[in-house]
Amino acid sequence: MKALLLVLDGVGDRPIKELGYRTPLEVANTPNLDRIAELGINGILDPISPGIRAGSDTAHLALLGYDPYEIYTGRGPFEAAGIGLKLERNDIALRCNFATIDENGIVIDRRAGRISEGTEKLAKALNNIKLSKAKIIFKESVAHRAVLILRSKNEKLSYRVSDSDPHEVGKPILKVKPLENSPEAEMTANLLNEFTEKAIEVLKEHEVNKKREKEGKLPANAILMRGAGVTPNLKPFKLSSACIATTGIIKGICKLAGMDIIPAKKEYKVRFKQALEVLEKKEFLLMNIKEPDEAGHDGDFRKKIEIIEKIDESLDEIPEFAKDNYVIILGDHSTPVSVRDHTGDSVPVVICGPEVRVDTVREFNERSCAKGGLNRIKGRDVMPILLDLMNKSEKFGA
Amino acid sequence: MKALLLVLDGVGDRPIKELGYRTPLEVANTPNLDRIAELGINGILDPISPGIRAGSDTAHLALLGYDPYEIYTGRGPFEAAGIGLKLERNDIALRCNFATIDENGIVIDRRAGRISEGTEKLAKALNNIKLSKAKIIFKESVAHRAVLILRSKNEKLSYRVSDSDPHEVGKPILKVKPLENSPEAEMTANLLNEFTEKAIEVLKEHEVNKKREKEGKLPANAILMRGAGVTPNLKPFKLSSACIATTGIIKGICKLAGMDIIPAKKEYKVRFKQALEVLEKKEFLLMNIKEPDEAGHDGDFRKKIEIIEKIDESLDEIPEFAKDNYVIILGDHSTPVSVRDHTGDSVPVVICGPEVRVDTVREFNERSCAKGGLNRIKGRDVMPILLDLMNKSEKFGA
Repeated sequence: MKALLLVLDGVGDRPIKELGYRTPLEVANTPNLDRIAELGINGILDPISPGIRAGSDTAHLALLGYDPYEIYTGRGPFEAAGIGLKLERNDIALRCNFATIDENGIVIDRRAGRISEGTEKLAKALNNIKLSKAKIIFKESVAHRAVLILRSKNEKLSYRVSDSDPHEVGKPILKVKPLENSPEAEMTANLLNEFTEKAIEVLKEHEVNKKREKEGKLPANAILMRGAGVTPNLKPFKLSSACIATTGIIKGICKLAGMDIIPAKKEYKVRFKQALEVLEKKEFLLMNIKEPDEAGHDGDFRKKIEIIEKIDESLDEIPEFAKDNYVIILGDHSTPVSVRDHTGDSVPVVICGPEVRVDTVREFNERSCAKGGLNRIKGRDVMPILLDLMNKSEKFGA
Repeated sequence: MKALLLVLDGVGDRPIKELGYRTPLEVANTPNLDRIAELGINGILDPISPGIRAGSDTAHLALLGYDPYEIYTGRGPFEAAGIGLKLERNDIALRCNFATIDENGIVIDRRAGRISEGTEKLAKALNNIKLSKAKIIFKESVAHRAVLILRSKNEKLSYRVSDSDPHEVGKPILKVKPLENSPEAEMTANLLNEFTEKAIEVLKEHEVNKKREKEGKLPANAILMRGAGVTPNLKPFKLSSACIATTGIIKGICKLAGMDIIPAKKEYKVRFKQALEVLEKKEFLLMNIKEPDEAGHDGDFRKKIEIIEKIDESLDEIPEFAKDNYVIILGDHSTPVSVRDHTGDSVPVVICGPEVRVDTVREFNERSCAKGGLNRIKGRDVMPILLDLMNKSEKFGA
């Protein structure tokens, strides 16, 4: 018996005036999702708890059965794991952006013109930076994204430091500050500020940037840092498992949980074929589809509807698969187009498979699912429910 | 964007035989509450968790986002704050009653004939009492109510002591006992027993009581104490806020949360006008209406229905207000007329405002709301849900 957990990232939404106060999921034509709702047991789910705005990282940790309040310190270590970096116990990892600052140090582009080439060379140069009291490891990820690791054998570091990323253009790079009154946090903040300055020196003269400027492109002449964290000690996931995802942070979480990371195919239809193939060998597969969240962040309800319909089209083999296996489909959080960011609204969830108590819900969306047999559950309930249905649970008590 | 949290104190009830097994909320004619239910998202709410009998104090703490299990020690400090007393860290505060005992020390009236005049003078006399190892501050509140504070610079005191109030007539005043095996609790209990004895001496001779006896009224010749507690360190409330309430303990909680306390107008209709006026300057207003709870304690379902209908009549401006703002209406707990006390039954809740996922509920009562889109939430979920809707939340994770 196998299980597929399909996360439609940010799919939950709020009623939209232009849609007659319906949500994109309510408006979208989704025969396959509705069929799965009809065959399954439905409900609404709070990724963390009602009203709490979850990140994709904390939500996925909860969905995989971990307690984010216990293990989550920042996104850095998951980003690091997502690009194959191995963290040691005392390491501090941060998510970085290659960015562009002007001659006065003001951030004019947080993504260095969405740089797509040459970041490997820039990262190599940055790796030569020597800090006073720690070693650095800097590695590029996709496009403008990168990861910085701070490592020290002698000094204790702390993740309790603020971001240098001002999170908007027109502002200078922020000084990293300690978020607690400890020598470790103070030292870590100082080291990161030292890195920021030295990185600007290194990048200024770099051939990649000289070439970009010649071509009229924005140079990647600064590094913005955020999400400092230490690597959590995740209890290995209970099932033989794999992950198909496109975002580094989700891949990183799954990797730290001991799952295989399978490179995602582009077309949804192909990706689901790939998923069913992987599930011939693995007991569990998490597939994250990022695009509904992106449409939410863009505030584009038409695009969100379109993407939902496109995903739906690729689900035609799922009802058959769910005859002998389990399928769970849910959002990891809501990203309403009116808010353009994650909110604390619950998300719809359906569990489909041989032994669920099928309810009367016939449509997969926020309000139909709220009338389903699961009522209201939390992100951290998903794994216990699934393991129980798969008969992989141990009894608590006698 | 503003928010009104309307607490109908003790409004929840159980099916009543005389009402054809319906509840007062189900029987009452409530066009405005029903309209708000129709415009909003509904559910049932457990103030603490299912089946737990909440006090008004613990319930309101939870509704304001605090964890009563963490911060609640007794009602004393909230009563103290409600009448403007400032507590210090080591202070122990207790809710007191002026009461009447007979010559054998038996309590014959727990409220001293509902004394309404002269308590200020009695309190002044009581403040002259010197205890062996602590200072006292005694202050009268409304009618028979009062607060005692025990303060010591040198001795550590403990709130872990029992009540002296026997909670029924025909019994002697109870000896206060330590509730834990510690020298602090033992000493605090001794000091409170010392106060009880000295108070009887002071009150016996007091002119106010001599006058009462001449007039054939019961003398306020003893003090009953209950609800010892230390003042909690409440994190300041996130929104600029105010409270309109008539009971000291609710005012005390709101005061400790940093909210402005607005004296409540008598007529509900005037009180709601007052609320909307206050909300022109504040982001959040909590209004507590105590009367449904009182009808429940009195076991009077007719009165409960009547009060609910009277409240409903004053809500006609709420639907308009909720077009651009949020309104939450709920009970803080159930006070079924059959039990004449708080029970652990859930209460109905409705959230009305511009971006909620409006459901199909059309009546505001215990059983209709149970079919709503919120399903079942807890008291502590209310603030996160509201702050999320008002876009005042921070993301947990990335």
